[in-house]
Amino acid sequence: MISKLITEIKKKNAPIVVGLDPMMSYIPEHIVNKVIADMGPSLEAAGEIIWQYNKGIIDAVYDLVPAVKPQIAMYEQFGIPGLVAFDKTVKYCKEKGLIVIADAKRGDIGSTSKAYATAHLGKVEVAGQSFAAFDSDFVTVNPYLGSDGVNPFIDVCNSEDRGIFVLVKTSNPSSGEFQDRKVLCSCEGATDDVKGVDCAGSSRALYEIVGEMVDKWAESSMDGDYSNVGAVVGATYPAMGRILRSIMKKSYILVPGYGAQGGSGKDLAPFFNEDGLGAIVNSSRGIIAAYKNEKYAEYTAANYADASRKAVLDMVKDINESVGLT
Amino acid sequence: MISKLITEIKKKNAPIVVGLDPMMSYIPEHIVNKVIADMGPSLEAAGEIIWQYNKGIIDAVYDLVPAVKPQIAMYEQFGIPGLVAFDKTVKYCKEKGLIVIADAKRGDIGSTSKAYATAHLGKVEVAGQSFAAFDSDFVTVNPYLGSDGVNPFIDVCNSEDRGIFVLVKTSNPSSGEFQDRKVLCSCEGATDDVKGVDCAGSSRALYEIVGEMVDKWAESSMDGDYSNVGAVVGATYPAMGRILRSIMKKSYILVPGYGAQGGSGKDLAPFFNEDGLGAIVNSSRGIIAAYKNEKYAEYTAANYADASRKAVLDMVKDINESVGLT
Repeated sequence: MISKLITEIKKKNAPIVVGLDPMMSYIPEHIVNKVIADMGPSLEAAGEIIWQYNKGIIDAVYDLVPAVKPQIAMYEQFGIPGLVAFDKTVKYCKEKGLIVIADAKRGDIGSTSKAYATAHLGKVEVAGQSFAAFDSDFVTVNPYLGSDGVNPFIDVCNSEDRGIFVLVKTSNPSSGEFQDRKVLCSCEGATDDVKGVDCAGSSRALYEIVGEMVDKWAESSMDGDYSNVGAVVGATYPAMGRILRSIMKKSYILVPGYGAQGGSGKDLAPFFNEDGLGAIVNSSRGIIAAYKNEKYAEYTAANYADASRKAVLDMVKDINESVGLT
Repeated sequence: MISKLITEIKKKNAPIVVGLDPMMSYIPEHIVNKVIADMGPSLEAAGEIIWQYNKGIIDAVYDLVPAVKPQIAMYEQFGIPGLVAFDKTVKYCKEKGLIVIADAKRGDIGSTSKAYATAHLGKVEVAGQSFAAFDSDFVTVNPYLGSDGVNPFIDVCNSEDRGIFVLVKTSNPSSGEFQDRKVLCSCEGATDDVKGVDCAGSSRALYEIVGEMVDKWAESSMDGDYSNVGAVVGATYPAMGRILRSIMKKSYILVPGYGAQGGSGKDLAPFFNEDGLGAIVNSSRGIIAAYKNEKYAEYTAANYADASRKAVLDMVKDINESVGLT
């Protein structure tokens, strides 16, 4: 699946993902008012509002970007009707030729991670017949439970040609509370590398240790020059991005935190390889709520999707000026 | 909400949670065959099968236990119809007076964690009206993103009288890969405690550091003697349970891994305080698939729910012999 993503990145010359994280506060009043007038206030109405909003954006940008990243929490908060909107969004994006990265940050003990992998990437059997549940192309995975929690996702990557992005260094301000902790390295030759034996005080950050594990997991799902096992590293931490780019040579890096969270084009070079491959940058609010930004205010809420298109074009330009494909 | 859980534990004299993790392979053929005959193979049929199976178990055990813990992954793998079964299960358990712990292990950056907290514990606004989506009493939370990712859950705990259990040391074999890593402690008086400055080689395991953060988070949502912020610590690691019990004095510990995963009653004492409070033990497969265990085979699949009831009674006895309430 990573080779398909790379092909699409090259074709559209845009190492960019549009984050479909529809906060109610982003959605233009004309959409909200029309649906509420038709359906009254309900979770079903919320699902319909989100779906109409998303469809407008998808129709306006699908020819410009290789991939979208719906954040499932934004749908889950509206219960079943919200998840119906998520499901419709995933299916519609795939119809439009977009690669779908479900941002779900799932992860659990083995048998449970297997169920999550099935839910988002695989097929489930009911009375001898196979069905796909949410059927995305990639899903984001939380590594806190270790290999048991990640391997079931890798198995599905291999059987169904899908991919994952494992959280390594997240974009949020408090990500360092655990991820930056200095971890004692284990002695060379130690039989159990979780023993944490002190080697004369040598240490690395936890995110580096997780990055090393991602590099190991990546080996088991290669697809061309890169692996179906990628990593999430926030644009807000470019110096750590540089370290992680060199640790995880086989992994694509999904980079959130561009734009609204503070990262900008010039911060992104460390995440990419010299040929302009190796990373894909997400923007959510900066694209889908562009019309609320002073820079695109002329579009007005009525033309929110056109504002999103212009914001994508500007983002492509900004990023390609810093890290263009060679 | 933790005081309500404690009241129910005392009333039923059972510090026990039944894990409603309906794997298809657990479900008796008579349920599967009847639903498939009626509906044909489909995700909708899977949802109905799960719901009927759960209802049988809930009806058989609700008077014996204070709480249930549905594992959402087992429902999510069947897509929307699976999540409809989850939703029905949560609502039915609450009707039966059970406290519901949604085992979802969610966690993300701030605004996204807020949406997850809303989804499972809170209320969401649509055109000025409030709606609850999944409406559980507790949800499990992954701490990898730090305070940003946990605080939105605590806010909802405080506004809606709900609770969370934060993953600290999970029950699976590979949990030590990251959770047991030895982390350098920071110097006393250091202004930034994520700097990881080496204090003459002193170090603690990552799970201890996470436990200390849980203890800090717990302060902000006290409800009687305990906090609405609890922790998950696996029964499979009793020595670590003892350490964490002393670090997280204000937190209830949710203990998975009893029975099928290897933990037994005598391993559980370290998780409890001397008065028999402070922990609640989960069993999933050992209860809901009891009829498949040789010990309960006499019940046969036709009476699977009676087997589950007997397994609960045996578990209560086993645990109360080791750690009874005083």
